[in-house]
Amino acid sequence: MSISLTLEALARLTEAKATEGDAAALARRLTGIAALADAGPDDLSFLGNPRYAAEVATSRAGAVLVPSDHPGAPAPGQAFVRVDRPSYALALVCAAVEASLWPRPPAGVHPSAVVDPAACVDPTAHVGPGCTLLAGASVGPRAVLEAQCHLGAGASVGADSWLKPRVTVGDHCVVGARCRLQSGAVVGSDGFGYEPVGDRVERIPQVGVVVLEDDVDIGANTTLDRARFSRTVVGRGTKIDNLVQVAHNVRIGRQCLVTAQVGIAGSTVLGDGCVLGGQSGVAGHLRLGDGVRLGAQAGLFEDVPAGGFMNGSPAVPFGLERRMAVLSRRLPELFKKVDSLAAALDALRKDAP
Amino acid sequence: MSISLTLEALARLTEAKATEGDAAALARRLTGIAALADAGPDDLSFLGNPRYAAEVATSRAGAVLVPSDHPGAPAPGQAFVRVDRPSYALALVCAAVEASLWPRPPAGVHPSAVVDPAACVDPTAHVGPGCTLLAGASVGPRAVLEAQCHLGAGASVGADSWLKPRVTVGDHCVVGARCRLQSGAVVGSDGFGYEPVGDRVERIPQVGVVVLEDDVDIGANTTLDRARFSRTVVGRGTKIDNLVQVAHNVRIGRQCLVTAQVGIAGSTVLGDGCVLGGQSGVAGHLRLGDGVRLGAQAGLFEDVPAGGFMNGSPAVPFGLERRMAVLSRRLPELFKKVDSLAAALDALRKDAP
Amino acid sequence: MSISLTLEALARLTEAKATEGDAAALARRLTGIAALADAGPDDLSFLGNPRYAAEVATSRAGAVLVPSDHPGAPAPGQAFVRVDRPSYALALVCAAVEASLWPRPPAGVHPSAVVDPAACVDPTAHVGPGCTLLAGASVGPRAVLEAQCHLGAGASVGADSWLKPRVTVGDHCVVGARCRLQSGAVVGSDGFGYEPVGDRVERIPQVGVVVLEDDVDIGANTTLDRARFSRTVVGRGTKIDNLVQVAHNVRIGRQCLVTAQVGIAGSTVLGDGCVLGGQSGVAGHLRLGDGVRLGAQAGLFEDVPAGGFMNGSPAVPFGLERRMAVLSRRLPELFKKVDSLAAALDALRKDAP
Repeated sequence: MSISLTLEALARLTEAKATEGDAAALARRLTGIAALADAGPDDLSFLGNPRYAAEVATSRAGAVLVPSDHPGAPAPGQAFVRVDRPSYALALVCAAVEASLWPRPPAGVHPSAVVDPAACVDPTAHVGPGCTLLAGASVGPRAVLEAQCHLGAGASVGADSWLKPRVTVGDHCVVGARCRLQSGAVVGSDGFGYEPVGDRVERIPQVGVVVLEDDVDIGANTTLDRARFSRTVVGRGTKIDNLVQVAHNVRIGRQCLVTAQVGIAGSTVLGDGCVLGGQSGVAGHLRLGDGVRLGAQAGLFEDVPAGGFMNGSPAVPFGLERRMAVLSRRLPELFKKVDSLAAALDALRKDAP
Repeated sequence: MSISLTLEALARLTEAKATEGDAAALARRLTGIAALADAGPDDLSFLGNPRYAAEVATSRAGAVLVPSDHPGAPAPGQAFVRVDRPSYALALVCAAVEASLWPRPPAGVHPSAVVDPAACVDPTAHVGPGCTLLAGASVGPRAVLEAQCHLGAGASVGADSWLKPRVTVGDHCVVGARCRLQSGAVVGSDGFGYEPVGDRVERIPQVGVVVLEDDVDIGANTTLDRARFSRTVVGRGTKIDNLVQVAHNVRIGRQCLVTAQVGIAGSTVLGDGCVLGGQSGVAGHLRLGDGVRLGAQAGLFEDVPAGGFMNGSPAVPFGLERRMAVLSRRLPELFKKVDSLAAALDALRKDAP
Repeated sequence: MSISLTLEALARLTEAKATEGDAAALARRLTGIAALADAGPDDLSFLGNPRYAAEVATSRAGAVLVPSDHPGAPAPGQAFVRVDRPSYALALVCAAVEASLWPRPPAGVHPSAVVDPAACVDPTAHVGPGCTLLAGASVGPRAVLEAQCHLGAGASVGADSWLKPRVTVGDHCVVGARCRLQSGAVVGSDGFGYEPVGDRVERIPQVGVVVLEDDVDIGANTTLDRARFSRTVVGRGTKIDNLVQVAHNVRIGRQCLVTAQVGIAGSTVLGDGCVLGGQSGVAGHLRLGDGVRLGAQAGLFEDVPAGGFMNGSPAVPFGLERRMAVLSRRLPELFKKVDSLAAALDALRKDAP
């Protein structure tokens, strides 16, 4: 990754409120991006998280994206670029880098790809080397399938979606428009359904599908099970991180954030705007209202109304969990205190007439 | 997924005890399957979980599979199909759908597959596009390898097993008969074994294999490590969900259910009929008897005799864990109570002669 | 897996201190390796973990690798091979087996691999069937890419590294020398970065890379996210197990052990020699000193200085967590005790004059 940006171009790109620095700083050309502690004189850095504010003063960065109201001034030879939100400003810079690093690959099907004659690939789409597309699969306009992707029978990928190498979309599953799927993601594995029959378990066929609405992102090696019947649904704009498990018949609302290694058990329904912390788990057949939040590693076993924030395993309301965590650390002290109370009481009883 | 079923065919397929409804209901043709709350007049629905019983009365489903003893009667234009177990009855319907959706693909090796001359594929088996089979690999009668599967040197897949797209079976590993492996599953990755030697760690070669006995199912992106030597074994009829980790030299008994994101550390031995809840973990070198159950997110660090049910992390017997969970929520109250007891005792002591 | 070793060869291979046994034992040829409980007269076994010491006396193994100071003598027809560390001795045996089981595959590119003309493969390297290498990818001397591996644009794999089937190295990512990557590993998926913009979230482009230094091992289906900018780094000699999530901008030091299903959130920095237990999680933006240890399923939400050992979720120092775990189990007893204290105090107050 390399960039080449004048301060002026940077200010324009980030819609800067102000640019500060001496003549040397303002004449600088930036060729890299780095964290405050790591940056050198040719690097752009940024203050995205207030906890790193003290690092600005000692950073050797050639230019720093800082919040408009950041106190202090740049060091000699250093520029401050004042913006509303440095994180977002950096994202704009990175988007420009990304567009040059990863231009959309050329339209067309790589000769090594195996495309069933009954599949339908839009002429503006890209299908990379080693892909396999079965009968009835369809790829929309400007969609990109990088190397070794697989689309099952009747599976579809919408316009402008981008599948990184080695994504699997199972038979009859649907990927909407502008989705982004990372390597190893599996859309449409069988749901885990078994029924005891006599002394053995019998598999319950899973004949539904997975539907990813538009603007959904799916992380690397994440698995989404097809519904027992009907649909497992991920709502528009929802983003799912790596190694997440979404079981059959789950319905996730719109604009949710599901972080890495979360598991959501079967038939659970999430509202819009929910945020699930890393490694948290949600039991089956639950209903979570809009905007529900779940802490990292929490384990949820009950319904939660809109706006609820739960933590711990089993999960309880966030404030209660925080008190429980603090008091749990004081258990050794509490046990001692109760023992000494008991002793004092005994002594008092002996003295009593 | 679509179906087309008369009530009569449905009753026959599900071995119904009785069919109830008015003339319009009984003449209906069902073309979809949906949950009670979602179903419309052309859909079949079912009451599989008693917690949804109230939804039967308000469902718009054209036909509902209900338990034989379900109280109440169908709405006008709606049919009740009374069966022993609605879940199993629906499974029978879905099995019929599955058979039409996913007929066994035709026998033969896709021209894009790379099959070593020293591999052995039964003429009735199917090897899909992009598969790679190394020397000594063998595929049994009627087995199906969908697209992009890989069989290592000497790996074998038994009769009637079905590997979904992009399954990897490592060198010399064994998949039994009638197994079902989901996309991204890895059978036979190296065990995680290292030995400190001086100031660095040295890899311990892992030269054993993984053996899946007959009727084993493996979920998407699940990983099973080959033994350090000898065998990592999954017993006959055991079903493993997505994103599960099974470490080297683990032995899982027969007819176990291992749900999503479980981890089982090295050399642990599970009896038959064990059930491990989602995201639970089992430490290494443990022994679990037959029928042991482990709650979701539990962390087990000790042996458990047959029939034990453990929960929590570190796991304790289920009943104790339930009491601990309830009492933990009352810690704020307990700390206050002990403080007020101490105050009362102090007051009493001051008053004492 | 099969071996064929005389006692004499075994002693030489393991640098044995002494070999004991009767004539029959010493004349034996060993043809398998098995655990103490499973071994038969033709098998080599070993006492690697003191907890299994009692099993030596009842083992039917033809030869047992035991520690130099192991008390007792071999059974009739059985040999003891006394070594400094039986685990390491067995590793030497397994290394010999491994070298015969998995000789380095022949140099060259399989005709079914798709290698961009602008990729660079060392003539001594092996590129297996179905691999895809994009422009600018490079493969070093003696490196092995087994079947279906993918190297993105500008990705590089160093000398003597070995990629098992179906590994993905993303665009511009770097794999050092002598690394070993298991099937399904994804090096260089996008970091999970989003920024709320109005009523929706906007993706933050992730334009950095992942760098694996030399001698790094990565487990099956493990995911490592590329940095938002700059580098996500795994230090020299670090070993990572299966299904682990390493988020963007994480820096892991040298010689760390990260066991299965661990998650490390964004921008966290680990020192050298850290050991993370299975299914543990580390929150984002933390700093862990050298040699920090984290228990299985622990959840770490704060910085830890060098040498710290944390456990539980939220994690606290190990000793405290052990006391908390023991006392938590006594909560039912504590609540009862406090109730009876309160009752006794009440009685005393009533009696008071």
